[in-house]
Amino acid sequence: MKLSPSQLAEFDENGFVLLPDVFSAREVAILNEARQAVFAEQTDANIIEKKSGEVRTAMGLHLRHEVFARLVRHPRLVGPAQQILGDGLYVQQVKINVKSAFDGEAWQWHYDFATHHADDGVPEPLALNIHVFMEDVNEFNGPLYFITGSHKHGAARTHHDTTSTSYPLWCVDTDVVAGLIAKGGLVSAKGKAGSVLIFGDILVHGSPPNMSPWDRPIFSLILNTIANKQTSFARPDYKHHTDFTPVTALDDDCLMDHGRQPG
Amino acid sequence: MKLSPSQLAEFDENGFVLLPDVFSAREVAILNEARQAVFAEQTDANIIEKKSGEVRTAMGLHLRHEVFARLVRHPRLVGPAQQILGDGLYVQQVKINVKSAFDGEAWQWHYDFATHHADDGVPEPLALNIHVFMEDVNEFNGPLYFITGSHKHGAARTHHDTTSTSYPLWCVDTDVVAGLIAKGGLVSAKGKAGSVLIFGDILVHGSPPNMSPWDRPIFSLILNTIANKQTSFARPDYKHHTDFTPVTALDDDCLMDHGRQPG
Repeated sequence: MKLSPSQLAEFDENGFVLLPDVFSAREVAILNEARQAVFAEQTDANIIEKKSGEVRTAMGLHLRHEVFARLVRHPRLVGPAQQILGDGLYVQQVKINVKSAFDGEAWQWHYDFATHHADDGVPEPLALNIHVFMEDVNEFNGPLYFITGSHKHGAARTHHDTTSTSYPLWCVDTDVVAGLIAKGGLVSAKGKAGSVLIFGDILVHGSPPNMSPWDRPIFSLILNTIANKQTSFARPDYKHHTDFTPVTALDDDCLMDHGRQPG
Repeated sequence: MKLSPSQLAEFDENGFVLLPDVFSAREVAILNEARQAVFAEQTDANIIEKKSGEVRTAMGLHLRHEVFARLVRHPRLVGPAQQILGDGLYVQQVKINVKSAFDGEAWQWHYDFATHHADDGVPEPLALNIHVFMEDVNEFNGPLYFITGSHKHGAARTHHDTTSTSYPLWCVDTDVVAGLIAKGGLVSAKGKAGSVLIFGDILVHGSPPNMSPWDRPIFSLILNTIANKQTSFARPDYKHHTDFTPVTALDDDCLMDHGRQPG
Protein backbone atom coordinates (compact mmCIF):
# COMPACT_ATOMS: atom_id res chain seq x y z
CA MET A 1 0.00 0.00 0.00
CA LYS A 2 1.22 3.48 -0.91
CA LEU A 3 -0.01 6.90 0.07
CA SER A 4 -1.33 8.95 -2.84
CA PRO A 5 0.28 12.33 -3.64
CA SER A 6 -2.74 14.06 -2.07
CA GLN A 7 -2.46 11.93 1.08
CA LEU A 8 1.25 12.80 1.33
CA ALA A 9 0.39 16.49 0.87
CA GLU A 10 -2.27 16.20 3.57
CA PHE A 11 0.26 14.66 5.95
CA ASP A 12 2.74 17.48 5.29
CA GLU A 13 0.13 20.21 5.67
CA ASN A 14 -1.93 18.95 8.63
CA GLY A 15 0.64 16.75 10.35
CA PHE A 16 -1.52 13.63 10.12
CA VAL A 17 -3.44 11.52 7.64
CA LEU A 18 -6.40 9.18 8.28
CA LEU A 19 -6.82 6.16 5.99
CA PRO A 20 -10.18 4.35 6.15
CA ASP A 21 -10.73 0.66 5.34
CA VAL A 22 -7.10 -0.46 5.53
CA PHE A 23 -7.71 -3.69 7.46
CA SER A 24 -10.64 -6.04 6.89
CA ALA A 25 -13.12 -7.13 9.54
CA ARG A 26 -11.43 -10.54 9.63
CA GLU A 27 -8.00 -9.00 10.18
CA VAL A 28 -9.37 -6.74 12.91
CA ALA A 29 -10.89 -9.79 14.62
CA ILE A 30 -7.45 -11.48 14.58
CA LEU A 31 -5.92 -8.40 16.20
CA ASN A 32 -8.57 -8.28 18.90
CA GLU A 33 -8.12 -11.95 19.72
CA ALA A 34 -4.42 -11.29 20.25
CA ARG A 35 -5.31 -8.23 22.36
CA GLN A 36 -7.31 -10.35 24.78
CA ALA A 37 -4.31 -12.65 25.21
CA VAL A 38 -1.75 -9.94 26.01
CA PHE A 39 -4.16 -7.99 28.24
CA ALA A 40 -4.62 -11.07 30.41
CA GLU A 41 -0.89 -11.25 31.18
CA GLN A 42 0.53 -10.05 34.51
CA THR A 43 3.47 -7.84 33.49
CA ASP A 44 4.90 -4.38 34.09
CA ALA A 45 4.41 -3.82 30.35
CA ASN A 46 0.66 -3.63 31.03
CA ILE A 47 0.05 -0.17 32.49
CA ILE A 48 -3.02 -0.04 34.75
CA GLU A 49 -5.58 2.80 35.00
CA LYS A 50 -5.24 4.96 38.14
CA LYS A 51 -8.90 4.69 39.13
CA SER A 52 -10.39 1.53 37.67
CA GLY A 53 -7.41 -0.85 37.76
CA GLU A 54 -8.10 -1.87 34.14
CA VAL A 55 -5.36 -2.07 31.50
CA ARG A 56 -4.78 1.41 30.05
CA THR A 57 -1.78 0.60 27.86
CA ALA A 58 -0.14 -2.71 26.93
CA MET A 59 3.41 -2.33 25.59
CA GLY A 60 6.15 -4.33 23.89
CA LEU A 61 3.52 -6.29 22.00
CA HIS A 62 5.61 -7.51 19.06
CA LEU A 63 7.76 -9.39 21.57
CA ARG A 64 4.73 -10.83 23.32
CA HIS A 65 2.49 -12.17 20.52
CA GLU A 66 3.10 -13.43 17.00
CA VAL A 67 0.18 -11.45 15.56
CA PHE A 68 1.75 -8.19 16.70
CA ALA A 69 5.21 -9.36 15.54
CA ARG A 70 3.61 -9.56 12.10
CA LEU A 71 1.59 -6.36 12.40
CA VAL A 72 4.72 -4.22 13.00
CA ARG A 73 6.05 -5.57 9.68
CA HIS A 74 2.75 -5.24 7.83
CA PRO A 75 3.23 -3.66 4.39
CA ARG A 76 0.16 -1.44 4.91
CA LEU A 77 1.97 0.18 7.87
CA VAL A 78 5.62 -0.10 6.83
CA GLY A 79 5.00 0.96 3.22
CA PRO A 80 3.56 4.42 3.98
CA ALA A 81 6.21 4.98 6.68
CA GLN A 82 9.01 4.22 4.22
CA GLN A 83 7.41 6.59 1.71
CA ILE A 84 7.61 9.39 4.28
CA LEU A 85 10.92 8.56 6.02
CA GLY A 86 12.76 6.33 3.55
CA ASP A 87 14.34 2.96 4.40
CA GLY A 88 16.36 2.23 7.52
CA LEU A 89 13.48 2.28 10.00
CA TYR A 90 13.35 0.44 13.30
CA VAL A 91 10.55 -0.43 15.72
CA GLN A 92 10.73 2.07 18.58
CA GLN A 93 7.49 1.34 20.45
CA VAL A 94 4.55 -1.06 20.05
CA LYS A 95 1.47 -0.72 22.22
CA ILE A 96 -2.29 -0.71 22.54
CA ASN A 97 -4.02 2.18 24.30
CA VAL A 98 -7.39 0.71 25.13
CA LYS A 99 -9.34 3.54 26.74
CA SER A 100 -11.93 1.16 28.12
CA ALA A 101 -15.67 1.80 28.22
CA PHE A 102 -16.77 4.17 31.02
CA ASP A 103 -13.33 4.04 32.70
CA GLY A 104 -10.72 5.06 30.09
CA GLU A 105 -9.09 8.29 31.22
CA ALA A 106 -7.92 11.31 29.24
CA TRP A 107 -4.55 11.83 27.58
CA GLN A 108 -3.42 15.37 28.25
CA TRP A 109 -2.17 17.68 25.47
CA HIS A 110 1.24 16.39 24.43
CA TYR A 111 3.43 15.35 21.53
CA ASP A 112 5.42 12.15 21.41
CA PHE A 113 8.83 13.70 20.74
CA ALA A 114 8.85 15.48 24.11
CA THR A 115 9.12 12.08 25.78
CA HIS A 116 11.34 10.53 23.10
CA HIS A 117 13.75 13.45 23.41
CA ALA A 118 13.75 14.07 27.17
CA ASP A 119 13.58 10.47 28.36
CA ASP A 120 15.31 8.58 25.54
CA GLY A 121 17.63 11.16 23.95
CA VAL A 122 16.15 10.81 20.47
CA PRO A 123 17.84 13.66 18.54
CA GLU A 124 15.20 14.76 16.00
CA PRO A 125 11.38 14.62 15.72
CA LEU A 126 11.31 12.20 12.80
CA ALA A 127 9.45 9.21 14.21
CA LEU A 128 5.99 8.33 12.95
CA ASN A 129 3.14 7.12 15.13
CA ILE A 130 0.99 4.69 13.13
CA HIS A 131 -2.37 3.74 14.61
CA VAL A 132 -4.74 0.91 13.74
CA PHE A 133 -8.29 1.35 15.06
CA MET A 134 -9.24 -2.00 16.63
CA GLU A 135 -12.84 -0.88 17.21
CA ASP A 136 -14.83 2.02 15.78
CA VAL A 137 -13.63 5.36 17.11
CA ASN A 138 -16.44 7.89 17.49
CA GLU A 139 -17.16 11.21 19.14
CA PHE A 140 -18.01 9.54 22.44
CA ASN A 141 -15.32 6.92 23.16
CA GLY A 142 -12.24 9.11 23.34
CA PRO A 143 -10.93 9.90 19.84
CA LEU A 144 -7.59 11.63 19.44
CA TYR A 145 -7.85 15.39 19.14
CA PHE A 146 -5.19 16.87 16.83
CA ILE A 147 -4.15 20.50 16.65
CA THR A 148 -3.97 20.82 12.88
CA GLY A 149 -0.60 22.07 11.65
CA SER A 150 0.91 22.22 15.13
CA HIS A 151 3.99 20.38 13.79
CA LYS A 152 4.91 23.50 11.81
CA HIS A 153 5.82 25.58 14.83
CA GLY A 154 8.66 23.51 16.26
CA ALA A 155 8.69 21.56 19.51
CA ALA A 156 6.24 23.24 21.89
CA ARG A 157 7.02 24.16 25.50
CA THR A 158 6.18 21.35 27.94
CA HIS A 159 6.10 20.36 31.61
CA HIS A 160 6.28 16.88 33.14
CA ASP A 161 2.89 15.78 34.47
CA THR A 162 3.11 12.85 36.88
CA THR A 163 -0.22 13.32 38.64
CA SER A 164 -3.13 13.54 36.17
CA THR A 165 -3.09 9.88 35.12
CA SER A 166 -1.08 6.73 35.83
CA TYR A 167 1.25 7.41 32.88
CA PRO A 168 3.83 10.23 33.39
CA LEU A 169 3.78 12.49 30.37
CA TRP A 170 5.51 15.60 29.07
CA CYS A 171 2.51 17.88 28.52
CA VAL A 172 2.27 21.06 26.49
CA ASP A 173 1.57 24.19 28.54
CA THR A 174 -2.04 25.31 28.13
CA ASP A 175 -1.16 28.82 26.91
CA VAL A 176 0.84 27.19 24.10
CA VAL A 177 -2.04 24.81 23.33
CA ALA A 178 -4.44 27.76 23.12
CA GLY A 179 -2.10 29.61 20.75
CA LEU A 180 -1.65 26.61 18.46
CA ILE A 181 -5.40 25.93 18.34
CA ALA A 182 -6.03 29.59 17.47
CA LYS A 183 -3.67 29.12 14.50
CA GLY A 184 -4.69 25.68 13.24
CA GLY A 185 -7.92 24.56 14.87
CA LEU A 186 -8.88 21.21 16.34
CA VAL A 187 -10.01 18.02 14.61
CA SER A 188 -10.89 14.63 16.05
CA ALA A 189 -9.73 11.43 14.37
CA LYS A 190 -12.82 9.24 14.06
CA GLY A 191 -13.32 6.20 11.89
CA LYS A 192 -14.36 2.59 11.58
CA ALA A 193 -12.35 -0.34 12.95
CA GLY A 194 -9.60 -1.14 10.47
CA SER A 195 -8.76 2.52 9.78
CA VAL A 196 -5.12 3.63 9.94
CA LEU A 197 -3.93 6.98 11.25
CA ILE A 198 -0.39 8.31 10.76
CA PHE A 199 1.01 11.36 12.56
CA GLY A 200 4.37 12.89 13.27
CA ASP A 201 6.46 13.25 16.40
CA ILE A 202 5.74 16.90 17.25
CA LEU A 203 2.08 17.07 16.30
CA VAL A 204 0.24 18.16 19.45
CA HIS A 205 -2.64 15.91 20.44
CA GLY A 206 -4.69 14.72 23.38
CA SER A 207 -7.85 12.75 23.96
CA PRO A 208 -10.81 12.93 26.33
CA PRO A 209 -11.92 10.16 28.68
CA ASN A 210 -14.24 7.48 27.41
CA MET A 211 -17.70 7.99 28.95
CA SER A 212 -19.35 5.63 26.47
CA PRO A 213 -20.13 1.90 26.71
CA TRP A 214 -17.73 1.24 23.81
CA ASP A 215 -14.06 0.32 24.33
CA ARG A 216 -11.64 2.31 22.18
CA PRO A 217 -8.58 0.06 21.70
CA ILE A 218 -6.03 1.54 19.32
CA PHE A 219 -2.86 -0.26 18.24
CA SER A 220 0.13 2.09 17.98
CA LEU A 221 3.42 1.42 16.21
CA ILE A 222 6.18 4.02 16.38
CA LEU A 223 8.79 3.73 13.65
CA ASN A 224 11.95 5.85 13.80
CA THR A 225 14.97 6.08 11.52
CA ILE A 226 17.97 4.10 12.73
CA ALA A 227 20.16 7.19 12.14
CA ASN A 228 17.93 9.04 14.65
CA LYS A 229 17.97 6.36 17.34
CA GLN A 230 17.95 7.00 21.07
CA THR A 231 21.07 8.16 22.93
CA SER A 232 20.00 7.42 26.50
CA PHE A 233 18.63 4.17 27.81
CA ALA A 234 16.90 4.97 31.08
CA ARG A 235 13.38 3.72 30.27
CA PRO A 236 12.49 0.04 30.20
CA ASP A 237 12.80 -1.71 26.85
CA TYR A 238 9.01 -2.07 26.47
CA LYS A 239 8.71 1.74 26.45
CA HIS A 240 11.47 2.29 23.90
CA HIS A 241 12.95 -0.70 22.12
CA THR A 242 16.69 -1.03 21.54
CA ASP A 243 16.75 -3.48 18.65
CA PHE A 244 17.93 -1.33 15.75
CA THR A 245 17.47 -3.97 13.06
CA PRO A 246 15.82 -2.42 9.99
CA VAL A 247 12.16 -3.39 9.74
CA THR A 248 11.21 -5.17 6.53
CA ALA A 249 7.69 -5.67 5.21
CA LEU A 250 5.98 -9.07 5.15
CA ASP A 251 3.41 -10.13 2.58
CA ASP A 252 0.06 -8.40 2.43
CA ASP A 253 -1.76 -11.46 3.77
CA CYS A 254 0.58 -11.90 6.75
CA LEU A 255 -2.14 -11.47 9.39
CA MET A 256 -4.53 -13.93 7.76
CA ASP A 257 -1.75 -16.43 7.57
CA HIS A 258 -0.41 -16.16 11.09
CA GLY A 259 -0.40 -19.89 11.77
CA ARG A 260 2.84 -20.06 9.78
CA GLN A 261 6.19 -18.82 11.10
CA PRO A 262 6.88 -15.14 10.38
CA GLY A 263 8.91 -14.83 7.16
CA MET B 1 -42.10 31.94 20.67
CA LYS B 2 -43.89 28.63 20.19
CA LEU B 3 -42.56 25.17 19.39
CA SER B 4 -43.79 23.82 16.05
CA PRO B 5 -45.75 20.54 15.96
CA SER B 6 -42.63 18.77 14.65
CA GLN B 7 -40.50 20.24 17.46
CA LEU B 8 -43.06 19.07 20.02
CA ALA B 9 -43.04 15.59 18.41
CA GLU B 10 -39.23 15.57 18.53
CA PHE B 11 -39.29 16.44 22.22
CA ASP B 12 -41.76 13.62 22.93
CA GLU B 13 -39.83 11.07 20.88
CA ASN B 14 -36.19 11.90 21.77
CA GLY B 15 -36.66 13.53 25.15
CA PHE B 16 -35.06 16.82 24.08
CA VAL B 17 -35.23 19.49 21.43
CA LEU B 18 -32.47 21.88 20.28
CA LEU B 19 -33.51 25.30 18.95
CA PRO B 20 -30.83 27.31 17.09
CA ASP B 21 -30.72 31.11 16.84
CA VAL B 22 -33.12 31.88 19.67
CA PHE B 23 -31.10 34.74 21.20
CA SER B 24 -29.21 37.38 19.22
CA ALA B 25 -25.50 38.13 19.58
CA ARG B 26 -26.40 41.33 21.45
CA GLU B 27 -28.62 39.45 23.90
CA VAL B 28 -25.91 36.83 24.44
CA ALA B 29 -23.41 39.60 25.17
CA ILE B 30 -25.76 41.01 27.82
CA LEU B 31 -26.00 37.56 29.43
CA ASN B 32 -22.22 37.14 29.46
CA GLU B 33 -21.70 40.55 31.03
CA ALA B 34 -24.06 39.52 33.83
CA ARG B 35 -22.20 36.21 34.13
CA GLN B 36 -18.91 37.98 34.85
CA ALA B 37 -20.60 39.92 37.63
CA VAL B 38 -22.10 36.91 39.43
CA PHE B 39 -18.97 34.78 38.98
CA ALA B 40 -16.90 37.40 40.75
CA GLU B 41 -19.04 37.14 43.90
CA GLN B 42 -17.87 35.24 46.96
CA THR B 43 -20.84 33.04 47.88
CA ASP B 44 -21.73 29.44 48.63
CA ALA B 45 -24.01 29.63 45.58
CA ASN B 46 -20.86 29.62 43.43
CA ILE B 47 -19.68 25.98 43.38
CA ILE B 48 -15.92 25.67 42.81
CA GLU B 49 -14.11 23.02 40.66
CA LYS B 50 -12.40 20.30 42.70
CA LYS B 51 -9.04 20.66 40.95
CA SER B 52 -8.73 24.16 39.49
CA GLY B 53 -10.63 26.22 42.05
CA GLU B 54 -12.56 27.96 39.25
CA VAL B 55 -16.32 28.45 39.31
CA ARG B 56 -18.01 25.27 38.05
CA THR B 57 -21.63 26.24 38.74
CA ALA B 58 -23.18 29.52 39.84
CA MET B 59 -26.68 29.15 41.28
CA GLY B 60 -29.67 31.21 42.37
CA LEU B 61 -28.94 33.69 39.60
CA HIS B 62 -32.38 35.29 39.22
CA LEU B 63 -32.05 36.47 42.81
CA ARG B 64 -28.54 37.80 42.21
CA HIS B 65 -28.74 39.81 38.96
CA GLU B 66 -31.54 41.67 37.16
CA VAL B 67 -30.58 40.22 33.77
CA PHE B 68 -31.17 36.70 35.03
CA ALA B 69 -34.36 37.80 36.82
CA ARG B 70 -35.56 38.77 33.37
CA LEU B 71 -34.17 35.72 31.58
CA VAL B 72 -36.19 33.28 33.75
CA ARG B 73 -39.31 35.12 32.61
CA HIS B 74 -38.25 35.42 28.98
CA PRO B 75 -41.11 34.49 26.61
CA ARG B 76 -38.71 32.44 24.46
CA LEU B 77 -38.09 30.15 27.45
CA VAL B 78 -41.40 30.35 29.31
CA GLY B 79 -43.52 30.04 26.15
CA PRO B 80 -42.24 26.61 25.04
CA ALA B 81 -42.33 25.36 28.64
CA GLN B 82 -45.97 26.36 29.01
CA GLN B 83 -46.75 24.62 25.71
CA ILE B 84 -45.34 21.38 27.12
CA LEU B 85 -46.44 21.61 30.77
CA GLY B 86 -49.31 24.12 30.74
CA ASP B 87 -49.60 27.13 33.05
CA GLY B 88 -48.84 27.14 36.76
CA LEU B 89 -45.05 26.82 36.48
CA TYR B 90 -42.53 28.01 39.05
CA VAL B 91 -38.79 28.61 38.96
CA GLN B 92 -37.16 25.61 40.61
CA GLN B 93 -33.46 26.23 39.82
CA VAL B 94 -31.44 28.87 37.95
CA LYS B 95 -27.75 28.37 37.28
CA ILE B 96 -24.81 28.57 34.91
CA ASN B 97 -22.59 25.53 34.40
CA VAL B 98 -19.48 27.07 32.94
CA LYS B 99 -17.18 24.13 32.19
CA SER B 100 -14.18 26.41 31.81
CA ALA B 101 -11.46 26.04 29.19
CA PHE B 102 -8.92 23.28 29.95
CA ASP B 103 -10.24 22.82 33.52
CA GLY B 104 -13.96 22.13 33.30
CA GLU B 105 -14.64 18.63 34.60
CA ALA B 106 -17.07 15.97 33.46
CA TRP B 107 -20.66 15.52 34.55
CA GLN B 108 -21.29 11.83 35.11
CA TRP B 109 -24.31 10.00 33.61
CA HIS B 110 -27.38 11.20 35.48
CA TYR B 111 -30.87 12.60 35.15
CA ASP B 112 -32.12 15.61 37.04
CA PHE B 113 -35.16 13.96 38.65
CA ALA B 114 -32.98 11.58 40.67
CA THR B 115 -31.77 14.57 42.67
CA HIS B 116 -35.10 16.41 42.61
CA HIS B 117 -36.86 13.33 43.95
CA ALA B 118 -34.30 12.01 46.46
CA ASP B 119 -33.08 15.33 47.84
CA ASP B 120 -36.12 17.56 47.44
CA GLY B 121 -39.07 15.18 47.42
CA VAL B 122 -40.40 16.29 44.04
CA PRO B 123 -43.17 13.74 43.33
CA GLU B 124 -43.11 13.34 39.53
CA PRO B 125 -40.53 13.82 36.73
CA LEU B 126 -42.33 16.73 35.09
CA ALA B 127 -39.78 19.54 35.35
CA LEU B 128 -38.10 20.91 32.23
CA ASN B 129 -34.45 21.90 32.03
CA ILE B 130 -34.10 24.80 29.60
CA HIS B 131 -30.58 25.71 28.50
CA VAL B 132 -29.26 28.82 26.78
CA PHE B 133 -25.83 28.42 25.17
CA MET B 134 -23.79 31.47 26.24
CA GLU B 135 -20.89 30.53 23.94
CA ASP B 136 -20.66 28.11 21.02
CA VAL B 137 -20.87 24.50 22.15
CA ASN B 138 -18.80 22.17 20.01
CA GLU B 139 -17.38 18.65 20.05
CA PHE B 140 -14.37 19.74 22.10
CA ASN B 141 -15.60 21.95 24.92
CA GLY B 142 -17.85 19.55 26.76
CA PRO B 143 -21.27 19.33 25.07
CA LEU B 144 -24.09 17.47 26.78
CA TYR B 145 -24.41 13.85 25.70
CA PHE B 146 -28.02 12.64 25.63
CA ILE B 147 -29.18 9.04 25.53
CA THR B 148 -31.93 9.42 22.98
CA GLY B 149 -35.29 8.18 24.20
CA SER B 150 -33.99 7.26 27.65
CA HIS B 151 -36.99 9.08 29.17
CA LYS B 152 -39.27 6.34 27.87
CA HIS B 153 -38.00 3.65 30.22
CA GLY B 154 -38.90 5.21 33.57
CA ALA B 155 -36.53 6.51 36.21
CA ALA B 156 -33.24 4.61 35.84
CA ARG B 157 -31.37 2.95 38.75
CA THR B 158 -28.86 5.31 40.39
CA HIS B 159 -26.20 5.58 43.09
CA HIS B 160 -25.02 8.68 44.96
CA ASP B 161 -21.56 9.77 43.74
CA THR B 162 -19.85 12.16 46.14
CA THR B 163 -16.26 11.63 44.98
CA SER B 164 -15.89 12.11 41.20
CA THR B 165 -16.38 15.89 41.19
CA SER B 166 -17.09 18.68 43.67
CA TYR B 167 -20.85 18.38 43.08
CA PRO B 168 -22.55 15.33 44.69
CA LEU B 169 -24.78 13.69 42.11
CA TRP B 170 -27.17 10.77 41.81
CA CYS B 171 -25.57 8.86 38.93
CA VAL B 172 -27.05 6.16 36.73
CA ASP B 173 -25.36 2.75 37.09
CA THR B 174 -23.14 1.99 34.10
CA ASP B 175 -24.90 -1.27 33.19
CA VAL B 176 -28.14 0.69 32.93
CA VAL B 177 -26.42 3.40 30.85
CA ALA B 178 -25.06 0.74 28.49
CA GLY B 179 -28.53 -0.81 28.09
CA LEU B 180 -30.20 2.53 27.38
CA ILE B 181 -27.53 3.50 24.83
CA ALA B 182 -27.95 0.13 23.10
CA LYS B 183 -31.66 0.96 22.73
CA GLY B 184 -31.53 4.65 21.80
CA GLY B 185 -27.99 5.68 20.94
CA LEU B 186 -26.05 8.77 21.93
CA VAL B 187 -26.17 12.30 20.55
CA SER B 188 -24.30 15.42 21.59
CA ALA B 189 -26.04 18.78 21.80
CA LYS B 190 -23.85 21.21 19.86
CA GLY B 191 -24.76 24.65 18.58
CA LYS B 192 -23.96 28.31 18.33
CA ALA B 193 -24.22 30.76 21.19
CA GLY B 194 -27.85 31.81 21.51
CA SER B 195 -29.22 28.30 20.93
CA VAL B 196 -31.81 26.91 23.35
CA LEU B 197 -32.03 23.29 24.46
CA ILE B 198 -35.01 21.82 26.31
CA PHE B 199 -35.01 18.40 27.96
CA GLY B 200 -37.05 16.51 30.50
CA ASP B 201 -36.42 15.40 34.06
CA ILE B 202 -35.60 11.71 33.48
CA LEU B 203 -33.64 12.00 30.24
CA VAL B 204 -30.22 10.47 30.97
CA HIS B 205 -27.29 12.71 30.10
CA GLY B 206 -23.69 13.47 30.95
CA SER B 207 -20.86 15.54 29.55
CA PRO B 208 -17.11 15.14 29.13
CA PRO B 209 -14.49 17.50 30.54
CA ASN B 210 -13.49 20.55 28.54
CA MET B 211 -9.97 20.00 27.14
CA SER B 212 -10.31 22.92 24.72
CA PRO B 213 -9.31 26.58 25.06
CA TRP B 214 -12.99 27.58 24.80
CA ASP B 215 -15.19 28.11 27.86
CA ARG B 216 -18.56 26.39 27.65
CA PRO B 217 -20.93 28.45 29.84
CA ILE B 218 -24.53 27.26 29.67
CA PHE B 219 -27.42 28.98 31.44
CA SER B 220 -29.93 26.52 32.87
CA LEU B 221 -33.46 27.24 34.04
CA ILE B 222 -35.54 24.47 35.57
CA LEU B 223 -39.28 25.06 35.54
CA ASN B 224 -41.62 22.74 37.41
CA THR B 225 -45.36 22.71 37.87
CA ILE B 226 -46.54 24.18 41.15
CA ALA B 227 -48.74 21.11 41.66
CA ASN B 228 -45.55 18.98 41.54
CA LYS B 229 -43.51 21.11 43.94
CA GLN B 230 -40.97 19.77 46.42
CA THR B 231 -42.05 18.04 49.64
CA SER B 232 -38.75 18.18 51.54
CA PHE B 233 -36.61 21.24 52.12
CA ALA B 234 -33.15 19.98 53.06
CA ARG B 235 -31.09 21.61 50.31
CA PRO B 236 -30.22 25.29 50.32
CA ASP B 237 -32.62 27.60 48.52
CA TYR B 238 -30.13 28.32 45.71
CA LYS B 239 -30.22 24.61 44.77
CA HIS B 240 -34.01 24.35 44.80
CA HIS B 241 -36.07 27.50 45.15
CA THR B 242 -39.13 27.64 47.38
CA ASP B 243 -41.00 30.58 45.87
CA PHE B 244 -43.98 28.93 44.25
CA THR B 245 -45.34 32.06 42.57
CA PRO B 246 -46.37 31.25 38.98
CA VAL B 247 -43.85 32.53 36.47
CA THR B 248 -45.25 34.97 33.92
CA ALA B 249 -43.59 35.96 30.66
CA LEU B 250 -42.13 39.43 30.08
CA ASP B 251 -41.98 41.14 26.68
CA ASP B 252 -39.81 39.71 23.95
CA ASP B 253 -37.33 42.60 24.22
CA CYS B 254 -36.93 42.29 27.99
CA LEU B 255 -33.17 41.60 27.88
CA MET B 256 -32.40 44.49 25.57
CA ASP B 257 -34.32 46.73 27.82
CA HIS B 258 -32.86 45.71 31.16
CA GLY B 259 -32.09 49.24 32.35
CA ARG B 260 -35.78 49.53 33.24
CA GLN B 261 -37.36 47.80 36.23
CA PRO B 262 -38.67 44.29 35.44
CA GLY B 263 -42.38 44.51 34.57
